[in-house]
Amino acid sequence: MSPNTKTVSELAAHIGGRVLGDGGVSILRVAGLDSASEGDITYVEDEKFFEAANETKASCVITPAGADVKAPCRIDVKNPKLAFALIAEVLHPRKQRASEIHHTAIIAGDAQIAADVFIGAFVCVGENSVVGERTQIRAGAKIGDHVKVGHDCVIHPNVFLEDGVTVGNNVILHAGVVIGADGFGYVRGEMSYHKFPQIGTVIIEDDVELGANTCVDRAALGRTRIGRGTKIDNMVHVGHNCDIGERVVIAAQTGISGSVVIEDDCVSGGQVGFGDHIRVQSGAVIGSKAGVLPGKIVRPGVWWGIPIQPLDEYKRLNAHISRLPHVRRELKELIERVKMLENESRSSEE
Amino acid sequence: MSPNTKTVSELAAHIGGRVLGDGGVSILRVAGLDSASEGDITYVEDEKFFEAANETKASCVITPAGADVKAPCRIDVKNPKLAFALIAEVLHPRKQRASEIHHTAIIAGDAQIAADVFIGAFVCVGENSVVGERTQIRAGAKIGDHVKVGHDCVIHPNVFLEDGVTVGNNVILHAGVVIGADGFGYVRGEMSYHKFPQIGTVIIEDDVELGANTCVDRAALGRTRIGRGTKIDNMVHVGHNCDIGERVVIAAQTGISGSVVIEDDCVSGGQVGFGDHIRVQSGAVIGSKAGVLPGKIVRPGVWWGIPIQPLDEYKRLNAHISRLPHVRRELKELIERVKMLENESRSSEE
Amino acid sequence: MSPNTKTVSELAAHIGGRVLGDGGVSILRVAGLDSASEGDITYVEDEKFFEAANETKASCVITPAGADVKAPCRIDVKNPKLAFALIAEVLHPRKQRASEIHHTAIIAGDAQIAADVFIGAFVCVGENSVVGERTQIRAGAKIGDHVKVGHDCVIHPNVFLEDGVTVGNNVILHAGVVIGADGFGYVRGEMSYHKFPQIGTVIIEDDVELGANTCVDRAALGRTRIGRGTKIDNMVHVGHNCDIGERVVIAAQTGISGSVVIEDDCVSGGQVGFGDHIRVQSGAVIGSKAGVLPGKIVRPGVWWGIPIQPLDEYKRLNAHISRLPHVRRELKELIERVKMLENESRSSEE
Repeated sequence: MSPNTKTVSELAAHIGGRVLGDGGVSILRVAGLDSASEGDITYVEDEKFFEAANETKASCVITPAGADVKAPCRIDVKNPKLAFALIAEVLHPRKQRASEIHHTAIIAGDAQIAADVFIGAFVCVGENSVVGERTQIRAGAKIGDHVKVGHDCVIHPNVFLEDGVTVGNNVILHAGVVIGADGFGYVRGEMSYHKFPQIGTVIIEDDVELGANTCVDRAALGRTRIGRGTKIDNMVHVGHNCDIGERVVIAAQTGISGSVVIEDDCVSGGQVGFGDHIRVQSGAVIGSKAGVLPGKIVRPGVWWGIPIQPLDEYKRLNAHISRLPHVRRELKELIERVKMLENESRSSEE
Repeated sequence: MSPNTKTVSELAAHIGGRVLGDGGVSILRVAGLDSASEGDITYVEDEKFFEAANETKASCVITPAGADVKAPCRIDVKNPKLAFALIAEVLHPRKQRASEIHHTAIIAGDAQIAADVFIGAFVCVGENSVVGERTQIRAGAKIGDHVKVGHDCVIHPNVFLEDGVTVGNNVILHAGVVIGADGFGYVRGEMSYHKFPQIGTVIIEDDVELGANTCVDRAALGRTRIGRGTKIDNMVHVGHNCDIGERVVIAAQTGISGSVVIEDDCVSGGQVGFGDHIRVQSGAVIGSKAGVLPGKIVRPGVWWGIPIQPLDEYKRLNAHISRLPHVRRELKELIERVKMLENESRSSEE
Repeated sequence: MSPNTKTVSELAAHIGGRVLGDGGVSILRVAGLDSASEGDITYVEDEKFFEAANETKASCVITPAGADVKAPCRIDVKNPKLAFALIAEVLHPRKQRASEIHHTAIIAGDAQIAADVFIGAFVCVGENSVVGERTQIRAGAKIGDHVKVGHDCVIHPNVFLEDGVTVGNNVILHAGVVIGADGFGYVRGEMSYHKFPQIGTVIIEDDVELGANTCVDRAALGRTRIGRGTKIDNMVHVGHNCDIGERVVIAAQTGISGSVVIEDDCVSGGQVGFGDHIRVQSGAVIGSKAGVLPGKIVRPGVWWGIPIQPLDEYKRLNAHISRLPHVRRELKELIERVKMLENESRSSEE
């Protein structure tokens, strides 16, 4: 699996960690605590797994500085999980594909294809489109006309980039992604719907990753944007004219209606629904399956529910709802007691 | 962008509007109020944007008749947004692709391909299938056997039409659409599930548009139907044997279980879930994220919630839920007061 | 449609049923009660359709043993729907495609392709991959490197199987399915997200069926598994490291976060959301649109709601919520009555 073997010392240097044990041990792969074996490096973060870390067969364990873990070879760091991810980048680099333009690919005569590009079988690249250096466009992906794809991207099989779309550098688009299909906008005429113009575009900035079968619609007018470093899971719908900021994280199957703004560093759970013209302010976190009403401004903080409420409030209301049978009983009982008091009062008047 | 330049007078005539200003001004493009520049036509509907309309750089503004907008060149109409859509159809007609059958396409010998068709690279058209005049079948789309596609359709890249499916005229199927995959039906045997037969078909009528990665399953027995003029957004699931009427609008990620009937002119928000064997009566509107129980008959009106309720009722219940902490406090206080009254009553008896 | 004509007696023998009427009648097709005509076999289960069964034009009706149905030719069995499904398998066997490797397919030199395989146009099979006997890989499907596909599978158009994935025997993958794309896992660094390694794999066991555009992500480390005989509908998301057991049924658009375990014989409705690290115990049934909180253990039984509750409890709470306006009125009235009692009490003290 891993073409790159490193010593523990080399890896420790890469992540700025401190070696405890034999820095000369060879590491070939990353692995989980339980399944690790010789040649693997693993990590532990949470105290409740320290026991398991003592028993791992990994050749090295990345540990939080000062952790009471007895593995013979450790690297102490501040953030073991991050260190593990950074080491994985070294030991398991993205699959390299030898520079090639497959003989079956159909590339427009005026397309600009940079050096060291991989273009797989049955790929199309349309007129006047640009593909940057070292970018991989895998089998069956279709790139329309006037599309710009930056350098070091991976466009997985069967992705479709519609005419005029722009994709930055170091972007990963998983299989089945569709970018730049028409947004969903119609105007009702007397007896039918007319398409509202969907003639804008889409801009995907650097370092974005989009999950399999995710769809980002083109703007009606103007542009739909996915900001730098944003990560989006499978089957997410991003409607026309959305402006998704930088370092936003959106889990699977979330749906974002038209003209929604999600500012930098927000997080959305899976299956969340955003009505149109919402603004989610930087730093807001929205729980899975939540629903945000059209036009809403979502302030920083943690939100949940349909429609969304601050998480604490939502939990409190849920607790109140759970107590409803009890409330009902109390109320009934109280009604009886009041009735009795009224009867006494009446009889004492007589 | 726009190959067609028109004068303001020509456009006004097309939409039956009244020119205020110089009808000879040339218009090249439609644009939004804010981003418009010379050569653009824009529109305003809502009074709160009249101020912005006064400051737009568009060469012409479509306005509601009699609106207090000071733009030097206007077209007054009853429905500016509809007029804008109709003008966009003129200025930005659907991309024309020169008639071509790409040399890589695999077309069955007995398929009937009409005149002026565009068939892109790596397309398959199966045995005995029919493609109507001027229809575009873009790169990578796969058409099975015995499929009928009408005239003036656009079948976008990587769409799949399974055997026996029928698609009407002027239909748009966005990238990744799957029509005619097996419906989801099984019968539990002793130790495994057996497929309930999924041998029906799908009929997509004229003027339908289906969003990217939307799936319409074939009927178990009989047919699944999407009625004329219906518009469906991205990643919608239409189960086997559904009968969706005419001019229905369904937003993204909605899921429709088997044998659901949605009558003409209904509207569904996004992420709605329909249980099986529901009938939605003509004119019903169902809010986003709602859930409709199996077998339910949904009458005309506006519905929301899980399970759905009339919108007003749903809102009222939501308000009641928000007041629950208050109710709880009132009840507790009342219990104390009743206790006090009981004590008084008891002590007065003594 | 059906290449196989059988007599009623032959079909009855196949399903272990008893013929009432002429066993020599020829049957060509299965059909629904209402639409059936001569040569069709249909079934009835529920007493409320017995009337319709008396009027069907089908040549034979499968009926529950002893049912009061007057059709001239019947087969009595214990489970008519199952019998109908088994008969459909005989009359409408899966479409056979003559063994062929299409001349446009790109098959790696060291791929092992078994006998009697169908490989359609524009298919890719990568290095060192294996395709079992009689498996059909339809047009446009892409199989990566080191992939194993068993025998008698149908891989529908535009499916993508990423490197290293394993698919068992008799598996059906509908169009647009993506197996083995990276899971969704990142570690936040100072100013950006780093990909948590997604270097595990996916195992799809025998007799699994996955609906159109469904995505099953590869494990971060280890494997994601779909157990034998499990049936999954369209556009379902299965996150990294999930372990879905045998004979599990999951309806459309359900989303399953990372590391969820769903044990054998569970059922999930559509649009359900599972947070990460959930364990659903064997036999649990979860209603459509439900939401299960991360880390939850779901015991056998029927569950519904967000977050899930036992179905009865959920229904009871919903009833309580509906009564809230009434509770509010009762409480207000009671407050008035207590006030009156307090006034009386005060005045009697004076």
